[in-house]
Amino acid sequence: HTPYPRTVTICCCTRTHTPCQPALWKMTENCFMHHRTKVLTIDTMNPNVKKVEYAVRGPIVQRAVQIEKELKAGAKKPFSEVIRANIGDAHAMGQRPITFFRQVLALCSYPELLEGNEFPEDAKERARRILQACGGGSIGAYSASQGIECVRQDVARYIQERDGGIPCNPDNIYLSTGASDAIVTILKLLVCGEGRNRTGVMIPIPQYPLYSAALADLGAVQIEYYLDEENCWSLDVSELRRALVAAQQHCSPRALCIINPGNPTGQVQSRQCIEDVIRFAAEEHLFLMADEVYQDNVYAEGCEFHSFKKVLFEMGPEYSDTVELVSFHSTSKCYMGECGFRGGYMEVINMDPDVKVQLTKLVSVRLCPPVPGQALLDVVVNPPRPGEPSFNTYIKERTSTLQVLAEKAWLTEEVFNTVPGITCNPVQGAMYSFPRITQITGNLLLAPDMFYCMKLLEETGICLVPGSGFGQREGTYHFRMTILPPTDKLKIVLEKVKQFHQSFTQQYS
Amino acid sequence: HTPYPRTVTICCCTRTHTPCQPALWKMTENCFMHHRTKVLTIDTMNPNVKKVEYAVRGPIVQRAVQIEKELKAGAKKPFSEVIRANIGDAHAMGQRPITFFRQVLALCSYPELLEGNEFPEDAKERARRILQACGGGSIGAYSASQGIECVRQDVARYIQERDGGIPCNPDNIYLSTGASDAIVTILKLLVCGEGRNRTGVMIPIPQYPLYSAALADLGAVQIEYYLDEENCWSLDVSELRRALVAAQQHCSPRALCIINPGNPTGQVQSRQCIEDVIRFAAEEHLFLMADEVYQDNVYAEGCEFHSFKKVLFEMGPEYSDTVELVSFHSTSKCYMGECGFRGGYMEVINMDPDVKVQLTKLVSVRLCPPVPGQALLDVVVNPPRPGEPSFNTYIKERTSTLQVLAEKAWLTEEVFNTVPGITCNPVQGAMYSFPRITQITGNLLLAPDMFYCMKLLEETGICLVPGSGFGQREGTYHFRMTILPPTDKLKIVLEKVKQFHQSFTQQYS
Repeated sequence: HTPYPRTVTICCCTRTHTPCQPALWKMTENCFMHHRTKVLTIDTMNPNVKKVEYAVRGPIVQRAVQIEKELKAGAKKPFSEVIRANIGDAHAMGQRPITFFRQVLALCSYPELLEGNEFPEDAKERARRILQACGGGSIGAYSASQGIECVRQDVARYIQERDGGIPCNPDNIYLSTGASDAIVTILKLLVCGEGRNRTGVMIPIPQYPLYSAALADLGAVQIEYYLDEENCWSLDVSELRRALVAAQQHCSPRALCIINPGNPTGQVQSRQCIEDVIRFAAEEHLFLMADEVYQDNVYAEGCEFHSFKKVLFEMGPEYSDTVELVSFHSTSKCYMGECGFRGGYMEVINMDPDVKVQLTKLVSVRLCPPVPGQALLDVVVNPPRPGEPSFNTYIKERTSTLQVLAEKAWLTEEVFNTVPGITCNPVQGAMYSFPRITQITGNLLLAPDMFYCMKLLEETGICLVPGSGFGQREGTYHFRMTILPPTDKLKIVLEKVKQFHQSFTQQYS
Repeated sequence: HTPYPRTVTICCCTRTHTPCQPALWKMTENCFMHHRTKVLTIDTMNPNVKKVEYAVRGPIVQRAVQIEKELKAGAKKPFSEVIRANIGDAHAMGQRPITFFRQVLALCSYPELLEGNEFPEDAKERARRILQACGGGSIGAYSASQGIECVRQDVARYIQERDGGIPCNPDNIYLSTGASDAIVTILKLLVCGEGRNRTGVMIPIPQYPLYSAALADLGAVQIEYYLDEENCWSLDVSELRRALVAAQQHCSPRALCIINPGNPTGQVQSRQCIEDVIRFAAEEHLFLMADEVYQDNVYAEGCEFHSFKKVLFEMGPEYSDTVELVSFHSTSKCYMGECGFRGGYMEVINMDPDVKVQLTKLVSVRLCPPVPGQALLDVVVNPPRPGEPSFNTYIKERTSTLQVLAEKAWLTEEVFNTVPGITCNPVQGAMYSFPRITQITGNLLLAPDMFYCMKLLEETGICLVPGSGFGQREGTYHFRMTILPPTDKLKIVLEKVKQFHQSFTQQYS
């Protein structure tokens, strides 16, 4: 019997328009092409979606989930647990939430708690203010699509303070479902044209794969500029120019994405470099997108976070009146690590007012970002102030979380650089190391870094993401590992990777 | 001076590659085409986004927000407040959340509350179970992209019970950011082809404008089938066939969307009608999308909610083994009305396994739906059981909310049908009336129904959505009004609309 073809959709069954019995196609010759063919198959689905890749939750992670189930079912392995160092998921790795934030969220969820004495007055005051701004005093009401107005005001005040007084207009703030949502929304606005006129977007390599995934989904052209591994993953304008010129042959470059501090590469851009990038964007007529979700995660001595907004405005009206910039932030990273709440915002600067109307319309289709995430964002940008009852605990928790992250960043770099065949740039910021592995080979099925990470997972239970998921210079191989496991565990993880690397290179080089 | 063109992007400034001073283009002749042109303008943005419309938060609502600000600033108006009857936002209209749900959410947000005695044991038990399923025991951790496994299991059990034991596999459940998110995701999978091969999707007219907005955004073809206003907005298969045949001339119809109970039309489909629709989809090789977010909102005597899943399986393996169906649900409607949490799920049935892999990959790019919304969904599908301490309160709250909604549905229909020039079908279900207004005219700028709603807003403060935002038969005019204002206020609203309608028709007919 001929297997029935997946993509045929026209019924040649004798009883046309009556779907056949499930078993029939196995029995009658003239009944194998019929309606039972799926409408939606891999051959008939959206081809852009097929091109989407997202390694942070890719095949290695799927295998990790499988192994966890095997362990649970009693399978014998050379390890007792899977350690997920693949994703920047701080709470999952044991980081504690900030007490004050969670108190406010509990109060917002169940306002009856406002009557009791369990919670400090400053937490109650924040919760009351948020609830008053919600329809019917409930976080169960939709908010404005752009986000709750008082939260946007608090965000604007926070940015203004961060940037030394440079004004921030709440009308330019759009709250979002994590930063990813806002990034995809802006990319969507930018995409147009066909063939050589198709929108091209410049992204770093290595990059956070949300960018490549969103561009594939939107059918836009990915323009890759390489970060300089030899110089701590720094960004060089001449490389931007090389990538741009090459791309102009086959697409219409319109936007430049920057991730600072870098993901997966952890570099923190110097003020000078940011200025150069802005000048480049102005000269080359590019829309700037600054992914600044790790802005509080800066560890290396001599490094400091400079916001693109601040540098832009310090460059004077020639730039600050003209360059279109969107900056993204999130509640998922920094010292909060509240990934599950999907809170975030973007600030749009110098956006054409007509386009802004379109942006507001577009976000309204999804009604509003999750309100608990908006409430969380509000306390992140409006935390306890000196003199308030929760201030000391808040500062203590925040400082200690960031201090521990800094120590783990140093530890990671240090240990990796003792391993022959691994070189690791300083983890200046963010939450990841992205070491390079040399002298490795793959097998017939897997690229070397995928082979390496898969072996590591099977032998040690440690789940990393191969460098190919982020992009890397051809012939070089890396992996991304978060610095998030608790210090004790991180030491063990690093030791295990070290041992694995030694035996792996002995076996496969 | 020639105004500088918006879309010119090539610099003809003498100092090429050095952006000019902001004022320069007003001064020098050869400097008016320069880099200061915005990258992203209305002419250079994504053309699909421009076509997106979403009336539920459209111009009327924007004017309502403005009027609210004017009132706040002390402006004199013939009314003291804006009443937002434009959107199904129950809590904003004063509906109280279910106590048990919010207790569980408070416990999940601030697990220290598990130690105290403020909360009943069943709420604590639910919270503990949810927290145990979260990474690090925190709702601040990312969940699996498909949603927390135990929540998906609870959803599956809930569906199975709802459908009289027809099996439901948790692997077919995908949690989402409200139902909108899931609907857009499935539409995205379905879109492919160009020109006459472009995917067409059948949607009801009147429809909930998420569908038209998503199809415009995706560049898919909207195939409109009309609901029968003369027969309580019922769906007739011959009309489906008419619409399909007409569409086959210019696109490739692949999917059929049903909203049951209907939004904005409030009809509840009979079992027979659902069977006919399923048979039609099978014969015509269409992918079925059933938007069932109002499944608990059924008020009319003799009406009952029948899930597409249940009917499909009762039709036997000829259908249940073959027809591809996705059903959507949400925490935003029914008796919960928890819109702000953006919780929801979909069940995918008979989806090609390869496509399912692609779906899972696609949702992983956005990491996960908001975890507080997942926790909320969990208690919605796993509420207090008889014998548990919160059971009685839960049932009382739930029943009374649904009872009040039913009364308001009857009241609305009754009052509207006393007004000459308004005819209103029974609000069998959902949360809206969609009455027809006759004998009205517009002005030079506005369509009649838009003109009517705008006038109504200016004169009474009542915010409705014109029928054009949902689609209506040419030459007919409607508005959508929610039944959500508290009964006392709803009576006043209905009385005001009645008076307005009388004076409006006197003035403009």
